[in-house]
Amino acid sequence: MNRKMVFYMLGQILKLEAGIMLLPLICSLFYRELNIVIAFLITMALALFLGFALTLLNKPQNKTFFAKEGFVIVALSWIVISAVGALPFVISGEIPNYIDAFFETVSGFTTTGSSILTDVEAMSRGLLFWRSETHWVGGMGVLVLIVAILPTDSGRTMHILRAEMPGHSAGKLTPKLRTMTKILYFIYTGFTLLEIILLLCGGMPLFDAIVNSFGTAGTGGFGIKGDSIGSYNAFCQWVITIFMLIFGINFNIYYLVLCGRIRSIFKSEELWTYLAIFLLSSTVVVFNILKTVENLGDAIRLSAFQVSSIMTTTGFATTDFNLWPNFSKGILLMLMFFGACAGSTAGGFKISRVVLLFKKIVASVRQMIHPRAISTINFEGKTVENDTVNGVLVYLAVYCFCFVIILLLLLLEPFDLETNISAAAACFNNIGPGLSLVGPAANFSIYSSFSKIVLSFAMLLGRLEIFPLLVLFSPSVWIKRRAKA
Amino acid sequence: MNRKMVFYMLGQILKLEAGIMLLPLICSLFYRELNIVIAFLITMALALFLGFALTLLNKPQNKTFFAKEGFVIVALSWIVISAVGALPFVISGEIPNYIDAFFETVSGFTTTGSSILTDVEAMSRGLLFWRSETHWVGGMGVLVLIVAILPTDSGRTMHILRAEMPGHSAGKLTPKLRTMTKILYFIYTGFTLLEIILLLCGGMPLFDAIVNSFGTAGTGGFGIKGDSIGSYNAFCQWVITIFMLIFGINFNIYYLVLCGRIRSIFKSEELWTYLAIFLLSSTVVVFNILKTVENLGDAIRLSAFQVSSIMTTTGFATTDFNLWPNFSKGILLMLMFFGACAGSTAGGFKISRVVLLFKKIVASVRQMIHPRAISTINFEGKTVENDTVNGVLVYLAVYCFCFVIILLLLLLEPFDLETNISAAAACFNNIGPGLSLVGPAANFSIYSSFSKIVLSFAMLLGRLEIFPLLVLFSPSVWIKRRAKA
Repeated sequence: MNRKMVFYMLGQILKLEAGIMLLPLICSLFYRELNIVIAFLITMALALFLGFALTLLNKPQNKTFFAKEGFVIVALSWIVISAVGALPFVISGEIPNYIDAFFETVSGFTTTGSSILTDVEAMSRGLLFWRSETHWVGGMGVLVLIVAILPTDSGRTMHILRAEMPGHSAGKLTPKLRTMTKILYFIYTGFTLLEIILLLCGGMPLFDAIVNSFGTAGTGGFGIKGDSIGSYNAFCQWVITIFMLIFGINFNIYYLVLCGRIRSIFKSEELWTYLAIFLLSSTVVVFNILKTVENLGDAIRLSAFQVSSIMTTTGFATTDFNLWPNFSKGILLMLMFFGACAGSTAGGFKISRVVLLFKKIVASVRQMIHPRAISTINFEGKTVENDTVNGVLVYLAVYCFCFVIILLLLLLEPFDLETNISAAAACFNNIGPGLSLVGPAANFSIYSSFSKIVLSFAMLLGRLEIFPLLVLFSPSVWIKRRAKA
Repeated sequence: MNRKMVFYMLGQILKLEAGIMLLPLICSLFYRELNIVIAFLITMALALFLGFALTLLNKPQNKTFFAKEGFVIVALSWIVISAVGALPFVISGEIPNYIDAFFETVSGFTTTGSSILTDVEAMSRGLLFWRSETHWVGGMGVLVLIVAILPTDSGRTMHILRAEMPGHSAGKLTPKLRTMTKILYFIYTGFTLLEIILLLCGGMPLFDAIVNSFGTAGTGGFGIKGDSIGSYNAFCQWVITIFMLIFGINFNIYYLVLCGRIRSIFKSEELWTYLAIFLLSSTVVVFNILKTVENLGDAIRLSAFQVSSIMTTTGFATTDFNLWPNFSKGILLMLMFFGACAGSTAGGFKISRVVLLFKKIVASVRQMIHPRAISTINFEGKTVENDTVNGVLVYLAVYCFCFVIILLLLLLEPFDLETNISAAAACFNNIGPGLSLVGPAANFSIYSSFSKIVLSFAMLLGRLEIFPLLVLFSPSVWIKRRAKA
């Protein structure tokens, strides 16, 4: 383990964090929230001091960098950035308990959107801005941002990107990695700006338009109103519905379209499966909730918004879907696990994995019927290698194990199974609200400190797709071994 | 597809079914239940007529027999034997609705133990006996019984056993298959008789001792009292607790012990994991329910019984565990998915698969840390082949898919999520009672006919470990192809 390199990168991350705090600092200055300004200045000073100390003391001589360093850096960075990012909430006194603040910040960076706030509207503008900005930064990835900004060698970059980017498609991105990450951030920023403009056109105030766009872009879902998106007009709700869907699509597709390869849209099985699941789920929910709302138009708007919000693991709400019929709640609970496309800012298991598993099952049955036939699996027009399929199968196994352990730890709480299961699902899949006692009209403040720590790690596991944290906590990664000849 | 062979075997199955109806027929005669005697005689006549018609018309010339024929025969046999086995309930008028009777019979043969009966104590002795006998026959497998009784060639036998026997260890049993199946039935019968004797010693009436032993041996769980096992004395409850555990252990171990290889007990990782999960779960449940019962002894008895019953997928109850604290209910819901040992009569995912998946995950993390190291997985003292591990991974995928589809179909019912999720889990894992509205004090009569059919197939999928039914419903298996040179 190249420890110097790990600490050096952590230092860089802390400096970056001080940098991204500039925007909420300006926001607090603008709204003349003096104590928030002070809270940000103290945190930034601490982050910069620690950042420079770490980078200066750990100037790496040895540039050796393998996959394990990539995993460890990613896992540690996300923990450290959340630990430091929680400070402004505590220093300002708006979230006095550090564990609560840590939960809220992890929820921000992992683009989960679960909150422990009982009255979000009482919070200062500066901290609301910071909370939503963490979604935007976490959506694309904090280390991806570093890679895009700082000069690093390509071996290191690749290992970091593989560990941080959601889905199993990072392999595709190898050529010209830095250019690629810059283009991804360009697309990401472009869509975010477009959403802000459209929301402004819809009559949303500028501050609201910015933070809600941050929440949409990162598929995060922190709202700044007690009823999330419910009090905005129908136009704004439709804009957010469509942009949630846009940010749930694999960014490779936008990249390919930018390069002029428009055909790739039609060839993408994942994209069409994603849209098909969205249309099918929205339609059945419309019919199911029709009795509870005034007219068909409302039913379509509410259903499309909520299905889009849960599928893309955003977690915004325009209504308290916990009051919907059991059928619709069940559909939403299932969608929580599917997630959106790989290579998007969304969490969950990812549609491409679901499609690959389905194809593997069909191939296995075919193999049983015709044992001598050679069966290959095709996806997105290419033959999928066995290693990729096995990787997805192993991911399913580790995903199930993690979910069982998270749920087991939550069971210590006195709540009903629907609450605990949906809380575990909502945090692990980076969605936000669950059902029952953690539904969209409620929050996670009912949980004990222990459970909040469990759920914080569930969010990190979900966002980083489990393995970086497992590697970080493997003893063998920290034991010094003599180099083999 | 060798259709003649398939229909010939179906004929044999029907003749066997007529044969096993002799015992409940004698029971009805003994208790002078005339209409039940008539119901059995009509069914037996029909089964024999169909059985002889099928075997005489389909004398197979061509002995070609592959894995797909094995899967199709097993899947069809289980559907047919349940369809015919339901007739005595309908003809006697005790379960007038055929779908209800089919559900009850599938639940019997698959050793699930879920019931649609609202008043089990009102049922005649003959039908209670038949209901529990289906557990006993289904536990070891209907085709295993045919293999043990009738002379068949070994290729056919192997393919049938592989498709019918629970777990992924059928490969181990290849040498001297017929002898092996006879020994397995010998062990099975021996333990069943021992349990009957012990229950008689505990003061249980003979009829009750026999049917409850059938339910224990098959890990089925049909009770003949409204409170399942609750009204029997503590001694009988402990006997059943221990025998449920015994029947949840891989029968290979008993076989090896019979052959004098007692060491194999100590080497079996699956056995020790199974016992460890039992002890750990029972202990935590004891502390959790301590407040709700009178003394520690009661808490231990209730907890050990219930954990053993759910883990082994039996489904007997000595108390309404739906009234237990949420923590204990959550533990039981999780245990529903784990199941007991492969090669036992129990359902569920099976402990050996869980252990293998866990080892695969550890190996994958190790591979990420040391990419050049060669990692192998050892289980029960042997290196596990990659194909076996991949088979387990694919099984997890298909298991998850089936569970999602079953749950999706159940969501059409107006019940709460806890009811629907636990109903799906209880049927798919062949347990019996679920939680909430399908808890041990309730039954499955609340579900619609459509859902009862869905749940019947869920039970068959669980008992046959999914693939035989998938092969049966694959169009390509039924399309005639020209034989290759």
